[in-house]
Formats: sequence, C-alpha cells, structure tokens
Amino acid sequence: MNEKCAVVGIFGHKEASELAYFSLHSLQHRGQEAAGISSSDGKKLHTIKDRGLVMKIFDENKLATLKGDSAIGHTRYSTAGDDSILDAQPVFARYDLGEMAIVHNGNLTNAEEVRNKLIEKGAIFQTFMDTENLIHLIAKSSKDKLLDRIIDAVQRIEGAFSLVFLSRTKMFAMRDRHGFRPLSLGKLSNGGYIVASETCAFDLVNATFVRDVEPGELLVFEKGKEPVSIKVYEPTPKHCIFEYVYFARPDSSVFGQSVYQTRKNMGKELSKIEPIEADMVIPVPDGGVPSALGYAQESGIPYEMGIMRNHYIGRTFIEPTQKMRDLKVKMKLSPMTDIIKGKRVIVVDDSIVRGTTSRRIIRMLKEAGASEVHMRVSSPPTTDPCFYGVDTPSKENLIAANMTTQEICDYIEADSLAYLDEEALLRSVNANGEDKYCTACFTGKYIV
Amino acid sequence: MNEKCAVVGIFGHKEASELAYFSLHSLQHRGQEAAGISSSDGKKLHTIKDRGLVMKIFDENKLATLKGDSAIGHTRYSTAGDDSILDAQPVFARYDLGEMAIVHNGNLTNAEEVRNKLIEKGAIFQTFMDTENLIHLIAKSSKDKLLDRIIDAVQRIEGAFSLVFLSRTKMFAMRDRHGFRPLSLGKLSNGGYIVASETCAFDLVNATFVRDVEPGELLVFEKGKEPVSIKVYEPTPKHCIFEYVYFARPDSSVFGQSVYQTRKNMGKELSKIEPIEADMVIPVPDGGVPSALGYAQESGIPYEMGIMRNHYIGRTFIEPTQKMRDLKVKMKLSPMTDIIKGKRVIVVDDSIVRGTTSRRIIRMLKEAGASEVHMRVSSPPTTDPCFYGVDTPSKENLIAANMTTQEICDYIEADSLAYLDEEALLRSVNANGEDKYCTACFTGKYIV
Amino acid sequence: MNEKCAVVGIFGHKEASELAYFSLHSLQHRGQEAAGISSSDGKKLHTIKDRGLVMKIFDENKLATLKGDSAIGHTRYSTAGDDSILDAQPVFARYDLGEMAIVHNGNLTNAEEVRNKLIEKGAIFQTFMDTENLIHLIAKSSKDKLLDRIIDAVQRIEGAFSLVFLSRTKMFAMRDRHGFRPLSLGKLSNGGYIVASETCAFDLVNATFVRDVEPGELLVFEKGKEPVSIKVYEPTPKHCIFEYVYFARPDSSVFGQSVYQTRKNMGKELSKIEPIEADMVIPVPDGGVPSALGYAQESGIPYEMGIMRNHYIGRTFIEPTQKMRDLKVKMKLSPMTDIIKGKRVIVVDDSIVRGTTSRRIIRMLKEAGASEVHMRVSSPPTTDPCFYGVDTPSKENLIAANMTTQEICDYIEADSLAYLDEEALLRSVNANGEDKYCTACFTGKYIV
Amino acid sequence: MNEKCAVVGIFGHKEASELAYFSLHSLQHRGQEAAGISSSDGKKLHTIKDRGLVMKIFDENKLATLKGDSAIGHTRYSTAGDDSILDAQPVFARYDLGEMAIVHNGNLTNAEEVRNKLIEKGAIFQTFMDTENLIHLIAKSSKDKLLDRIIDAVQRIEGAFSLVFLSRTKMFAMRDRHGFRPLSLGKLSNGGYIVASETCAFDLVNATFVRDVEPGELLVFEKGKEPVSIKVYEPTPKHCIFEYVYFARPDSSVFGQSVYQTRKNMGKELSKIEPIEADMVIPVPDGGVPSALGYAQESGIPYEMGIMRNHYIGRTFIEPTQKMRDLKVKMKLSPMTDIIKGKRVIVVDDSIVRGTTSRRIIRMLKEAGASEVHMRVSSPPTTDPCFYGVDTPSKENLIAANMTTQEICDYIEADSLAYLDEEALLRSVNANGEDKYCTACFTGKYIV
Repeated sequence: MNEKCAVVGIFGHKEASELAYFSLHSLQHRGQEAAGISSSDGKKLHTIKDRGLVMKIFDENKLATLKGDSAIGHTRYSTAGDDSILDAQPVFARYDLGEMAIVHNGNLTNAEEVRNKLIEKGAIFQTFMDTENLIHLIAKSSKDKLLDRIIDAVQRIEGAFSLVFLSRTKMFAMRDRHGFRPLSLGKLSNGGYIVASETCAFDLVNATFVRDVEPGELLVFEKGKEPVSIKVYEPTPKHCIFEYVYFARPDSSVFGQSVYQTRKNMGKELSKIEPIEADMVIPVPDGGVPSALGYAQESGIPYEMGIMRNHYIGRTFIEPTQKMRDLKVKMKLSPMTDIIKGKRVIVVDDSIVRGTTSRRIIRMLKEAGASEVHMRVSSPPTTDPCFYGVDTPSKENLIAANMTTQEICDYIEADSLAYLDEEALLRSVNANGEDKYCTACFTGKYIV
Repeated sequence: MNEKCAVVGIFGHKEASELAYFSLHSLQHRGQEAAGISSSDGKKLHTIKDRGLVMKIFDENKLATLKGDSAIGHTRYSTAGDDSILDAQPVFARYDLGEMAIVHNGNLTNAEEVRNKLIEKGAIFQTFMDTENLIHLIAKSSKDKLLDRIIDAVQRIEGAFSLVFLSRTKMFAMRDRHGFRPLSLGKLSNGGYIVASETCAFDLVNATFVRDVEPGELLVFEKGKEPVSIKVYEPTPKHCIFEYVYFARPDSSVFGQSVYQTRKNMGKELSKIEPIEADMVIPVPDGGVPSALGYAQESGIPYEMGIMRNHYIGRTFIEPTQKMRDLKVKMKLSPMTDIIKGKRVIVVDDSIVRGTTSRRIIRMLKEAGASEVHMRVSSPPTTDPCFYGVDTPSKENLIAANMTTQEICDYIEADSLAYLDEEALLRSVNANGEDKYCTACFTGKYIV
Repeated sequence: MNEKCAVVGIFGHKEASELAYFSLHSLQHRGQEAAGISSSDGKKLHTIKDRGLVMKIFDENKLATLKGDSAIGHTRYSTAGDDSILDAQPVFARYDLGEMAIVHNGNLTNAEEVRNKLIEKGAIFQTFMDTENLIHLIAKSSKDKLLDRIIDAVQRIEGAFSLVFLSRTKMFAMRDRHGFRPLSLGKLSNGGYIVASETCAFDLVNATFVRDVEPGELLVFEKGKEPVSIKVYEPTPKHCIFEYVYFARPDSSVFGQSVYQTRKNMGKELSKIEPIEADMVIPVPDGGVPSALGYAQESGIPYEMGIMRNHYIGRTFIEPTQKMRDLKVKMKLSPMTDIIKGKRVIVVDDSIVRGTTSRRIIRMLKEAGASEVHMRVSSPPTTDPCFYGVDTPSKENLIAANMTTQEICDYIEADSLAYLDEEALLRSVNANGEDKYCTACFTGKYIV
Repeated sequence: MNEKCAVVGIFGHKEASELAYFSLHSLQHRGQEAAGISSSDGKKLHTIKDRGLVMKIFDENKLATLKGDSAIGHTRYSTAGDDSILDAQPVFARYDLGEMAIVHNGNLTNAEEVRNKLIEKGAIFQTFMDTENLIHLIAKSSKDKLLDRIIDAVQRIEGAFSLVFLSRTKMFAMRDRHGFRPLSLGKLSNGGYIVASETCAFDLVNATFVRDVEPGELLVFEKGKEPVSIKVYEPTPKHCIFEYVYFARPDSSVFGQSVYQTRKNMGKELSKIEPIEADMVIPVPDGGVPSALGYAQESGIPYEMGIMRNHYIGRTFIEPTQKMRDLKVKMKLSPMTDIIKGKRVIVVDDSIVRGTTSRRIIRMLKEAGASEVHMRVSSPPTTDPCFYGVDTPSKENLIAANMTTQEICDYIEADSLAYLDEEALLRSVNANGEDKYCTACFTGKYIV
C-alpha cells in the first residue's frame, strides 16, 4: 500500500522555490515517480515538472528560473508501469482571472461525475488526474473573485483532498472536511509561511510548526498579511489512520501527534493484548522499528536488530524466476544469523497486505535458525481497499479479506500470528472514544 | 530559420503506430526537440510523447502499447532553451464526444484572440501551444457531429495549419485555405492511407503519393471507405516558398513539385542573372548542394565538393570564446584545401540570415587559399520575420533588413555577393505568373 | 574512514559468475566505485569490469558471456575524484603459464620497493594498483608450477592481502600472515565452494559457512577435489579491529565472531566504563545502532531511534555554502523532535574521524530541543592513519590526533564526550589477552 | 571495411591536450568506439581514456587535468560487440626509465610471436592490444637511452605501425618501413609541432602541413629543438591504397596527395575504361561523391545527388526481420524519386564488400523508377582480407572472392557492373609505375 503524493507551499520568502525543493526532498517517501514546482514572481507563474526524484529533476539553474517569493510543489507516487510525465503536478492553467497552479494529495470520490458534468458543458480534459477537475471548476465558477471561486469549487468535490493553490499574488491551502490526508502550517524563520503534507518538511528548512490546517479549513496567504482562515465546511474529522501505521515519516507529527510515539504505542498495545514468550523482539526494517521498540519496552523482551536492510538496492536484471523472487527479498533484507540461531523470535511489522513478503521473511528467519517465529502486526487485518488516495490491491489480493488469521499464519509459515485490534489501535492513537479516524481499510466502513 | 514541426497520420493499417514511427523518423529534419504518437484501437486513444529524437523515444515495447490501426504523430522544433515536455504533441483530450488527439504544423495568427475568447467563456489553457485552441473549439462547438465541429473549429482560426485529428474511429486531415505548410496524401500498400508533411515519409513506409491535400480541404478517413473530401474554404494558395528554399527534404515533393529539381532551378536562374567567371562552383553543405549543382550545370563551371561536412558533431564543452566560435564552424565544416588553393570560387548557399556563418565560411575558404570567393545565394535577401510557423530572428537580427547587399558583401568579406531576385525565384518554382506563394520573408507582403 | 574493497571467489558451480554477482552485491558496502568479475570456462578467462554499482554494471547478457564454473569478483572503493576505470579489478594477465586473474583486498606495505625491483628487471606497470605487483611476481617466478609460483610471489610481499587467484582450471585463496582483512570459506549447496571477504555474501547465495581462511594459509581449489590447505606462513594474527568497529556488515561474522554481537559488546563495555544519567540512548544510524542497543541494554536507559536516516539521498546541485553544509547532514539525518525535546540524550556513534559530522549532529539534536547531549563513541580515539588498506585522512585531519578529549567535546558542542578505551575494546572482541588484533589506528603501534 | 584507429601528437604548446582533443575530433571517422589522451607536464604523465566519441569523453574539467605542453591521443575502432574499455589507448606504463604512453595505428603481423617471446621471458600482457608489445620491448631493451630503446623495439616488430610515444620530456613519432598507414607532420602557429594520422587534423587547430613522416623514419621532439629525424629503416613504401579509396577524409592529403583529387581521378579513370550511356551519374553518399563527380566530369553525363543520406540515424529498436533490414538502408539512404524516375542511372560507390548494401541500394533505385541501374565501383574487386590494421570480413564473406563480376552483377540486381582495374587505380593515384602501394586487398599480394 502506498500513499499517492505529497504537497508543499511556500509563501513570502525570496528563495521560495529552493525551500520548496528541500521540502519536497523531505517528502520523497510519499512519491518517487515524478515531482514538480510552480513559483510566482507576482506577474507570471513558472513551472518545472519531470519524472524522477526531486534531487535529480532540479538543479541550481532550474531553480533559478523558478523566480518569485511563493512556490508550490508536489511529489508523485504512481502505479506500476505508468510513467507518464503528463500526469505530474503542479497542474498549471491560464484562465479568465490569469494563471494558477494546483497541487493535490488525495483522491476525489466524485471525480468522474464532476468530470462528466464539466465535459457536458464543453470542458476538455487533457490528463487523467483528478486535479484537472479543480481548475475547471475554478475557471467555470460564476463568482468574480478567485477566493469565492475556490470555495465554490471545493464545495463541488468530495473525497480526500489536501490542496495548495498558487495564483500570481496569493496562495491558498485547503483540506477536505474530513481531513483525510495531513496538511500542516509552519512559519519560516523570516516570517514567511510553509504548508506541507508532513512536518518533517519543516525541520529541513528551519520552519517551526504552527498548527494543522483544519479539516474543512481554507487558508489564504496574501502579501504583508497574516494567513486568513475560512471555515468552508464544518469539520467532521476522519483522519487516515494508516498515516500513523505506515505512510508518514516517523519524525513527522500528523493529526496532532508524533508518528514515532504513536507507532511505539501500537507496539505497546500489541504487547499487552498479544503477549508471547520469546527471546527477542525484532522489527521488519524500517517500518516495524518503532512498534517493535514499543513491544519490547512493554514486554521487557530484548529488542534486537535481527534483520538488516541493504541500502544498495536497485533492479536486478536477472530473470525473476521463483528462485529469484526469494532472492529479491534477500537482496533487500538479511537475517542477523548469529543472533537468531536457536532463538524464539517475535517479528513485528506494520501491516500484512498480500502475505508474500511476510512469508519470505519468516522463511528467511527459519533458515537462519530461529526456533520459533511469532509474527506480530501493529495494525488490524487489512481487509478493504482505499478510495481516498491510497494505492491498495483489489480485495481479492488482500490476504486478510480472504483468509482467517489462522489461515494466514499457516500461509506465512509463522508459529503464531496476531494483529492489533481496532480498539487497541484507537487507544494507540489516543482517539479517546472520538470517532475521528478513517479505519475503512480495516473495517470496510467508508464515509458515504 | 527553422520550421516548427511535422505531422503524420496513418489510417487503416495493423501496424499504424509503427508506420507513424518510421514516417516521423523521415520527418526528423523538421523538428528534433520532441516527438509523439497517438493511436486508436477503436475504443480508446493511446499516447506517448517525450523529449528527444524519434528513434530514442520509442522502442518496440512502447510501440506495442500504441495499439490500433490508426495513428497520428508529430515531431517538434523548439526555440533555444525551451525544453518543456509539456508542449509536445499530439495534444490529447477527453471531451463530450469521447476522446481526440491532434497534431499541428504551423502557427495560428489569431491564436491569442481566440484563446482570450475561450478563456472568457470558462476555458482553461494548460500549455502554450496554439493546438490547444483547436480542441477547445471542437469541444465547445454547438454542432452535434465531430465532422461539423471540426469544420466549425477550423473556420474560427486563421494562419497556417496543417492538421491531423484522430478520434476513436476516424481520422481527419486539414490544411488552411492558403496551404502555407505542405500536407500530402499517400496510399499504403495494404490499401490504407497516410498523410504527412512531406512525401519523403511515404518512401520509407512504401506508400505511394496520391496527391496533396488541397488548401482549404478537409479529408475524412473512415473505416471501409475511401477518404471523403470536403471543401471547407475556397482555396487561395499562398504556399511557403521557403519550403523550397530550405525546409523540405530534397527527396520530397511539396506543393506539386520536386524540391531537389526546384532547388536546381534556383541555381540555374541564379547563374543566369548573376553570372561570374570562376574556377569552380561549391555548395555550402548540405543546403546549398542542389542549387550549386544547378548553377554549375547552367554556367558550365565545374562543380566541386569544396567544403566537407563533419557528421560527428555535438556540443563541445570548451568555453565559447571568440577563438572557439570560429572553431565551432570549423568543427562542422572544413575546406577541401587542395582543390581550393589559388582558385576563384563561387560558393552557393540557400540563404543568409544573420551573416555570421557566411562570414566564417568565407574566411575559412580564404585561409584555405582561395584567390577569390564569390557568394551566391539561391533566394532573395531575407528581410522580414515569418508569422506562419517559422522560427525567424527578429528584424534587427536579419542582416538583409539592415544592410545593403554591398554592405553585406563587405561584412561577410566576400569578393562579390549576389542573391536570386524574387522574379527569378518565382520562375524557379514555376509560378507561371500565378500569385500562389507566400514570399513575405523576402518582401514583407503578409496576407492579412 | 573506508575499507578499500571486497573479494569473492566461486568454484565448482555452473552459474559461477551469477553467484559472484550476487555475492558482490552483498559486499557492496565495502566499495561502490567499480566492480568486476572474471570467470574461467576451463580454456579461457573472461572479464568484465566497469565503474559503478554491481547491479548497474552487470545484466543477464553480460553474465552470460562470463562462462564457466569458476569466477572471482571485486568491488572497489576509491578515493574522491579518482574514477579511473583502469584501476578496477580483477587484474587479468596472459603470461607464460597461460591466463590468470587476481582480486585483492588490502594494501601492500612494500609495494613500491617490490615494484621498483620488478621495474629494474624490465617489468612495466600499467596501473597504480598493488595487485599488479602480484601478477608480475607470479609471471617472473623461476618455479615451474603455478602453485609454487604463487607461494613464491606471496612470500615477497608484505602488508595486508586477502587474495583470490583464478587460473583456467584452478582457484587459489590466500590471506597474509597477519590476517589483517577477513576472508572466509563457505560451501555451496551443490558441493562447490565460495570464498568471500564477509560471510554476509554466503547468505544470499545459500552457502554455508565452513571456516575462515587462516592467516598465512593458501587454499587450492581443483576440480573434483576438496580444497587443499597449504600453510605458507606461520600465522601471527593481527586482525583489523576496525572491521568490528565499522567496516563489516553487522550480519557478517568476521575473525570468528558475530559483528553485530561484538558491536553490542562494545556498547555494553562503553556503558560500564562511561556511564551517565540520561533519558534515552540513541544511535547515529546506521553505524551506531548495535552499540547503542548494547549501551541501552547494559545501562537500562531506554533505547530510542532518535535520529532518522533518509534513504533518498543523492547529490544536491545547490552550491555548498556554509548554510548548505549543515543542510547536507540534515538531508541525510533528521531528529525525532517529539521524542528528544527537553530530554537528556546519550548519542552513540562508532567513531569520530574529523569531528565535523558529530558537531552537526549534536547541533541538530540541540536545535530539536535536547536538554543535554552526551556523545559516546564505541571505539578509542582515532589517532593514526592506516597502512593496511583503509582510506584514512592524514594525521593532521584526525581530530583525536590533535585535540584532547575535552577539546573535542567542546568542538563538537557536546555536554560530555567519552570513548571506549583500548582495553574495553579488546574485551568487547573477546581478545582474552591475546595480541591478535591490529589496533594501530588507535595506538600507532604498527606491525613492522 | 574499417580502419582501426587514428593517432595524434602535440609537442610544445601550452594547450597541448586541448589541441589533441580537437585533432581527435577531426579524426573521429577513423574510430568511434573509444578515445584517449595522455599529456606530460614534464614530471608526470596524465591519462584519460574512455568509451565513446571524443566530444562526449572530454570536457573542460577533464582537459584541465591533462596538464603540460605535450600530449598524444587516439581514437579507436572496434569490432562489433567488443566494447572493452581496457583496450582503449594511449597505453600507459611505468618502467625503469620512468613513465611512457603510446598510441598506435596499424597492426603488427608478428605480434603473437613477439608476445610469446616476451611472455617466455616473464612478461605479462594485460590487454589484447598489439601496442602492449611495444612498451614491453622498450622496457626490456638492453639499451640505456629511451631513443635507443625505441629504435631497438621497433626493429623487432613487423607490420603496420604509425606510432607516437610520449615520455616525460620528449615525444617520438615513427612509421613502419612500408608506411602502410599515413602519418604527417605539421607546425603549430606558436612554433610547436603536431603529428597526426591525417592532415584534416591540422586545419582545425590552425597547423600548417610540413611533410609526411617518412616510412621507416623516427622523429624525435625535444624542448627548444627542431624535430630530429632518424632513419631507422631504409624506406620501402607500401602505402595502403584503401586510404585513398575509402578511409581517409576527402579534405586530407595522405601519402603526398589530395584524397579528394585522387578519388576524382578514380572516377575519371573508371569513366574511361568502363563507359556506358546513361542519363545521370549519382554517388552513393558520402563515400562515392568525389569519384562520381570525376566520372561525370570525364563522361559529360550530368552529376546528380540521386540518393540522399539521412543524418538522424541511430539504432532502431524494431526487431531486424528481413523487412527491417531493407528498412535499415532506407532509413539511412533515400532515393531522389522525382529525378530518377524513368532514367538510366550510373551509381558510383567506392567499393563492394559483401554486396548486400549494394543490392539494397539498387533495389531502392529501381523501386524509385530508374529504368536502368549501372553500378560502377571506383576500386577493383575486394578479394582478400587485410593484415595491416583494417577490419575486413573473412574471405568467404567477401563477395568478389567468391563470385565473378557477372555473378555479382546478377546478385546485386544491377543492369551492369564494372570495377576500376588495378592499373587504372594505380594511374589514379599517380603511382607512375612505382611499386609503392599495398594493393593486397585487391590482389592478395601481401608483403612477406
């Protein structure tokens, strides 16, 4: 499962595009397929977007052409095989009020319906991005002012959207009413502002966290003024709980809490509800590290780095026969044989999607001599696909949608398998009985 | 001076995208910046476009994804520094009648006016290509049928356009009423059809020339039918005479005549009106070859390959000091010293734009020992910029707009300089008194 | 400080070059500059070597040309700026007994002397690799048989060498008398053999560890026979203790002990001799992870992943101003602000070389809000350069050679700084009073 | 058939490596596989060599590291599939007199014998280049001075060699006694010297031709002195006549005569001995251009550019089926259909090797409508392979070694076929009865 993207906006800094560049680098884990930045010099927007990693796309000369003291940026995740540069963001458009650029993280659930209506009215769509809907809605809105048009536009869309808009003189940041995807506001050291999908982007550019953009809130950035907050919707939070489980970087704070600490909580809760006697707790790196640490601290069982991750990965050109598919996991992960041999091991991972990787890891640990391997998963069984911007396999490929926990345990060849249950997960994230998280991928309960 | 692009369309062949690929390769001289192909499998359009040469962009796997038995393609010329992949063609759009893709060679003179009107009505423009106007006009036309809409759309645009449209089941080819840019119809060996900017594309794919698409004519290609011709405009031909002078490949036939033969005619006319005694006639390769041959045949002065062109060009990384700028010409062209030494040389080129290259060539010939160098140019002085799709320097950079022929002669350090005059040029292209060519770049007489 | 290379040898397997390829991938951490493989098909040697990572250099087609059931391989570390492909290994030579290829990990201390003698006798040196000495010594040896020549040759060289030789029908593996660099013997599942710089290479190719090649031992591999052991020298072990400190992969076992476990021991010893009250122990990733874990387990202070490593690194094209140099560390490492804020932190790293990185890390932690930062280093102060194959800065750039511990502490802006002392280090590696490790980089006591 | 390489040497110029770079670019037609330059700053040699074109390998930074006022360079032709960077030149070596670098154009006929003797005496060979023999011979020579050793060394080798040696303070240029391959001396504008395989290298760097290095002559370049000439051998010229036929650039002068003029002579002679009635003479570009011009001038039949060469070549990724092999020629060459249709055409090429390309060209011309196609070849039938440095197919692949002229005519589907005979060829090159050319590829008469 993979997040689809990250967004960033910089307002009021002479090196806006450079700050956007570094911020995007911090958000690279949310999308490695393509990236782009649009800046405004007050008169004109400038856009560069391309395939590849942020570091590879931009250099000093390119950033120098992205003039102006405001900039928005995007990194894009893409489903396998689709390397179309045409679907990179920001989406730029000239329209009756001038020029605008938009970046979007999320997924519109009524995108097709909106698009069809727009098409009926003569609109053309040149890409397959939901984001294109928005620029049409803004362009076609009957309102006079851009602000009113943006409000008009976002009221017509549904689903998950953390958006940043750039016009020649202003910047706007907006989250959907449920606040599915994170979006935070930070203050730059010079007094300017930054909005970004995750707070880890703030650290690199020396910005300080101010607060999250609220669900349903539209922030308006204008030169010489403090950001103005407009409540477009009454907030009804449904934060994507999978951000805590896997997507967000552990050094970020999302939805008001430290990701690292929350993951440790999951491990602690998991230890409480699914204890087992063992010689050590080991994480599947890097995702399982904080929850394994939590599990170990709570249980008192020693934490060990029992599996090593090889950073020199890349594509092997060798034909992927069955032999090779096992090799592939081994080229990325390798067991700390001397530690594991003859030991009872609790291995902690953040989630099980298809089950194939878990099976390879457990086999690897057993081949390395582990006497017992107990799998502990710091989230509930993933049973349902996401419609709010996460790339999930279809239901028939989600192992937990098709097998009982015992069947999965047999399939992955573990000595025992246990998941965190929904309640414990909610305790981990300090939900305090509030119904403010989207747990649809575990429960199938979608917001209609 | 450079042409801006080439277009091609293939209809009714199982390997449509492959044929488009080879055709585009033949048309590579009209644009090396970017290229693209859209195909239709009857249900859906497929598009791939990218930076670079046709041969580099496409491979077997990519062509295999461009399914279907119709395809259109484009190669793009771009002004220096602008390597935006976003402005590559075909332009694809989903709209109320389904999907379409368009390729365009030329320049719309009322593009801004049309765009502004469209924008006023709520349209958004995501690129800086004139082509985007067309898809909007088609999408917004009040007509029901695509054919009627295309007619509607092209009636609203002015300027130079050789267009090919692809819908899911049909292909359309259209030339502006003046037929500024060439567009020819050919027949594939299997009974299918090809349209292309130049007939040299036909040879490579074993197609036979049928006829030119007429100025103002719209050709409709539909499965199982012969192409249907619709006269959208009464033709008032104003063919770009510079296609004969420089743009078109010598093995093409444009506007009904062999380019090579026409260039030879120019050389013959030049010899008649601007004779001079000399030991040899040499071309500036490759552009000046046919006219130098004509000059030599007419004058009886021996033709020699007095200047060699080095094909291993590329960018030198050495700092372009003054010394280096001379080197740059020498790295591309080198004199046949043993032939030239002590000889009176007539050097024939197709045109003089800025004069700097001519000066370097003449210096090079003199350094190689030529006793006299007489420059003969197989077109009239280039005095005016083009607004119909050719990238020309601004008037202050056109040497002939700012100097007399004698001044140019002094500047380029030639012993004599003479141009073909407009009348002789028209004789060369067999105009026969008809006013069917656009000679604006020589005369400043633009069609309003 | 960086190891200079890794070697591998495969004998008796139909897919010898493929196994060498995967083994080299496992050893990539020992050298990323260049890599190469030579194979023998019984009649002829085949060699491919090039710049770059193993995964990038080889593909299926290239491996297919490396025919035969024996192969040797090498990955190369290179000092900055030197990207000469000419110094990649294996070194191949035709000589009077046929063809041979050699790979070498280490550094010959009498290389210049030997080379000068050889040159006096008419030898030519085409590269700057010590390895070239060896092929000359073998070629010029007065002995008849290759085995005797190899013995003859290695008796003339001094310093650190873990070597693998490949002839058309045999393979030889040899370690210097001190066993400076590691070299282990493993058995392939089909009965063939592997030798490699680290045992982590065995895991990937499903080989089982047999034993280390002994210091001073020469192993001879011949078809259809078990490896024959020849004691060329009486072993006087002086294993590079820095392999435990930093070079070797934690999942390897070198010099008979688990690297991971040994690093944990270092952390435990460090905790015993340099305890301090604090809220958490955090590693500098990835090098400091095992020793930080050991420190935490011994001290009972909680272990936390307080610093995150960003895996999307690469070169930034932004001018490296002072601002940027700090950015550079931040782009690679970022603090877990929410955990660290207001806390007393013990940060554990494997070594301090120049001190600049440590300073940036401590600054970063303080900016993230740590109330106290105590640096603990799991090895003694690095005071002396290495002459046995490790790339060390010159003495004036080794901070510990020029400052007291207190001065270093002030320089890196830590609240306290403590190193593991030599005795404790030796306890960590279970030296048991035996003088079997080279600790010259900490003590300046070189083997003469 | 392809030449194997080009050499260049610059002595006594502050920008020696830069001049070598530009000279090598001029000689790129003699080898596109790899290139390299070694320079000397008086104390040390510096070498860079790599795969690819000269322009791609070197940039300003790299040239800046090649310090000193002398430099030698090489471009390398390589047989298909062999892209080993290891066989690039210059070959560098440290030996008892210091450092040297050598570049070599040609082929040593006793290379194996010499190598075997050297190997018997303990030498090792790390590459498969003949050039390696030379550095061994120099290193092992019993003479004291480098000059004497070079003389000693070249006296032990046989075959074709145009060599340039660079030591720390001197440069040496040498041609074999037969002068198989060209090598000329030029003077730089600052008083320094250049030697190069072809004089076309002089023009680019503003050097003036002094004279050819004589067969058997060794030129010694020393600072502050004029080049000293040493007659190592009595010259017995056997210049490779194929340099005139095909290899050399037409703007070069080799073996004392203009290549272009000599090729024209061949065409004239061909016209005299093999006349035929036709409407036009057309060359196969670019090789056939000068001889076709000569044929046309002599016969009075008009010369036309009947075949166009497409400069945007590259590898097509399309599977090379039979259909595609024809396409391949068509992608490179295309017929001037409008000129050719219905005409009797004489097509002139420099040689026929396998016959396949000729057949494709003739088919192409016939498909374009030529009523008759008469093939005229400006050299005799190529019947024998070359052992002096030219890459020729084996005898069974040389069509003229296996078929009569009539059979070849039938095979290539020409209406008539005629070759230049040996006598006429010798007349063309002004041999004047002297036996100073090697014509072995036409006659099988090799120098023993």
